[in-house]
Amino acid sequence: MERRKFLTSAALGAGAAALASPAVAASHAKQLTIVSTWPRDFPGLGTSAQRLAERIAVLSNGAFNVEYFAAGERVGAFDSFDEVASGNSQAYIGADYYWGGKHPAFNYFTSVPFGMSTPEWNAWIKHAGGQALWDKLSGEFGLKAIGCGSTGTQAGGWFNKEINSPDDFNGLKMRIPGLGGQVLSKMGASTVSLPGGQIYENLVSGSIEATEWVGPYNDYFMKFYEAAKYYYTGGMHEPGGGIAFGMNKAWWEGLSDYEKAIIEAACAEELASSHEEAIAKNGEFLGKLVDDHGVQVRAFNDDVWDAFGEASAEVFEDARAHSALATEVDDHFQKTLRAQGAMLAAFEGTFINQRNRVLGLI
Amino acid sequence: MERRKFLTSAALGAGAAALASPAVAASHAKQLTIVSTWPRDFPGLGTSAQRLAERIAVLSNGAFNVEYFAAGERVGAFDSFDEVASGNSQAYIGADYYWGGKHPAFNYFTSVPFGMSTPEWNAWIKHAGGQALWDKLSGEFGLKAIGCGSTGTQAGGWFNKEINSPDDFNGLKMRIPGLGGQVLSKMGASTVSLPGGQIYENLVSGSIEATEWVGPYNDYFMKFYEAAKYYYTGGMHEPGGGIAFGMNKAWWEGLSDYEKAIIEAACAEELASSHEEAIAKNGEFLGKLVDDHGVQVRAFNDDVWDAFGEASAEVFEDARAHSALATEVDDHFQKTLRAQGAMLAAFEGTFINQRNRVLGLI
Repeated sequence: MERRKFLTSAALGAGAAALASPAVAASHAKQLTIVSTWPRDFPGLGTSAQRLAERIAVLSNGAFNVEYFAAGERVGAFDSFDEVASGNSQAYIGADYYWGGKHPAFNYFTSVPFGMSTPEWNAWIKHAGGQALWDKLSGEFGLKAIGCGSTGTQAGGWFNKEINSPDDFNGLKMRIPGLGGQVLSKMGASTVSLPGGQIYENLVSGSIEATEWVGPYNDYFMKFYEAAKYYYTGGMHEPGGGIAFGMNKAWWEGLSDYEKAIIEAACAEELASSHEEAIAKNGEFLGKLVDDHGVQVRAFNDDVWDAFGEASAEVFEDARAHSALATEVDDHFQKTLRAQGAMLAAFEGTFINQRNRVLGLI
Repeated sequence: MERRKFLTSAALGAGAAALASPAVAASHAKQLTIVSTWPRDFPGLGTSAQRLAERIAVLSNGAFNVEYFAAGERVGAFDSFDEVASGNSQAYIGADYYWGGKHPAFNYFTSVPFGMSTPEWNAWIKHAGGQALWDKLSGEFGLKAIGCGSTGTQAGGWFNKEINSPDDFNGLKMRIPGLGGQVLSKMGASTVSLPGGQIYENLVSGSIEATEWVGPYNDYFMKFYEAAKYYYTGGMHEPGGGIAFGMNKAWWEGLSDYEKAIIEAACAEELASSHEEAIAKNGEFLGKLVDDHGVQVRAFNDDVWDAFGEASAEVFEDARAHSALATEVDDHFQKTLRAQGAMLAAFEGTFINQRNRVLGLI
C-alpha cells in the first residue's frame, strides 16, 4: 500500500486546511485513479505527472479522491490505454504516440517528425481546432484526452558512433517510438518502442545501439552515456513532445463544468510548468553530461536532415493511407503548422536570430 | 452598474451548478476586485483578462466574489498600481513595465530589449529564481505579482515611413513604453508611453508618428494602418510580453494554500492560453492587414539591429545604476537569458531552422 500513500498525504497536507468538512466532502468525492507510463519519482516526466495529480487533489478541495500509480504499480506502462478505456481507472498520463499501433493519428497528439514546437502544438490544440480532432480520435476508443505536459524539442538521441551521413542509420538498432521511428526505419534502421524503464538495460546489453529519450535534464538520470557517448541536439522526431491526460470518456462526460474546469486548469498549468522546467534545467544538465561524463555533443548535418525530410514524406503518406480520419488529422496539422510556423519565423524567429547574433549567443 | 454584471453573470452561468449552497458560499466569499489596464472586450489582451477573471470565479466555487473592471471603469489604466497597493482593490491585470518610473526593475517582469521569449521568461520566473526577485521588488510596494498572460514576441511597430537605417529613428515621435522606449530615445527618438485606449487618436492626429502595440491579432483591431502603413516584424523591445496579476500583498498572504492554488492555476492557464491564442491568430490577421488594408510588412536590417544592441547596452547600464536591486535583477536576468538562450538555440533552434529550411517555410 506504500504507493497509495503519496496522494492521500499530499491531498491532506496541502488541501485539507481549506476543506470545510473533509468527512462530508469525502463522501461525495468522485474517484480519480490515475495510471502513468513513467517510473515513480523519475526526474522530469515522472515528477511532473506526480505534481499534476497532487495539484488536481488540492484544487478539487475534496471533489475528487485522487490516487496515482506510476508505471508498473497498477498496470504496465503500455497497458494504461486499455486500463482507462475499460473504465478500470479514470485517467492515464502518457504519450499518445504509444497508441500509434491502434491508430496512426495518435502520433500527432504527441509529436511527429518535422512537426510543431511546444507553443505551436498548444496553439493548434487549444485555439486552432486540434482538440476537436483529438476528441474525434480518442472518442473512437472511449477516451477523452487533453494536454498535460510537454518536453520541449527533444534531443536527436544517444549513439555509440558519429552520424555523418544518412547511411549511418542503415542497420542501426535504435529505440525510437512514433512516426520518428518509422522515418528511421525507412532509412534502414531497426527501430523499437520501449517504455522509459526498459531502455537502459537494453542499451547496456547491446540489444539496441542507440536511443532517444527527451533532452539533457530528463536524459541525465537515464545514464545512457555509459553505453553511448555521442549526444545529438534537436532532432526531427519530437519537436514538441506533448503529454496526454487521457480520461475515460463516459467518466469525463459525467463531470460538472466545475469539475472539468479543475482538470483543465491543472493540466494547462502542468503542461506549461513541465516545458519551462526543461528549459530552465537543460543547460545545467548538459553541462554535467559533458563535464562529468565525457559526452560528445553533435548536430546532424544538412545531408542527414534532407534524408529525414524525404523519409518523413513517405511516412506521412503511409499514415494518411490508414483511414479518412488519419488523412483529416494530417491535413489539418500540416496546414496549421505551415501557417503558424511561417508567422513565428517572421516575428519570434527574426527576433531570436538577431538577438543571438547581436549578443553572441551562437 | 452595467460593468458589474459581467462577472456576476459569468460566475453564475459557469460555476453555479457546482455550488452546493451559493448563499452559504457567498457569505464566506473573499472579495476579489480586479482592475485591468485594458479596454473592455478588447480582442487579445482585454478578452484574456476577462477570461481569467471568469476562470478564477468558476474554479473558486464560491470562495471568491470576483468583480472585474476594465480600464477607466473604476480607475484609469495607469492608476491600477496605486489602487491595489492601497488595498482599495485586490488585484490588477497589466504590464508591470508601466511602473518602470517607480522602479526600473519592473521592466524585467514584462519584457526588456534583447530579452527573453515567452517560454524563456516563464522558465526564468517559475524554475530559475525569477519569481523570488519579482517578489522582492513588488514587496517593496506592498504588492505580490505572478504571470497571467503573454503576447509572444511583439511586432517592431507601425511607421509612416520605411526604416532603413538607425538615423531614421532620429526625431521620430513614437509610442513605445519600457526600456525599449529608452533604447529608441538613445537613438534620437521622442518616445511616450500611452495606454492602449489612447494610442489611435494620437497617431491619427499626428501627435505621434509611430507606435508599437502587440502583434497582428491584437494590432488589427487598433486600426493603426489608417495612419501608418509600414509594419515591422519581430522587434527588439518586447520579445516576451509578460502580463502580471498584481495583488495586494497583505491580501495574498491572508489566503489559504487552497485559495492561492486557485489563483496560481488560473493565471498559469491563462498565461499559456493568451500566448497560444496569439500564435493561432496572428497569421490570419496579418493576412487581413495586408490584403484588406494595404499594409506593407518589413523587417529591420542588420545595421538597425546593431544600433538597437548598442543603445540597449547603455539602457541596461542606466537601469543598473538605479539601485542594488535593479543590478541584482539585471545580473540574474542576463545570466539566465544567455544560459537558456544558448541551449534553446542548440535544441529547439536547430530543429526549427532545419524544419523551415526542409519544408520551405522561409
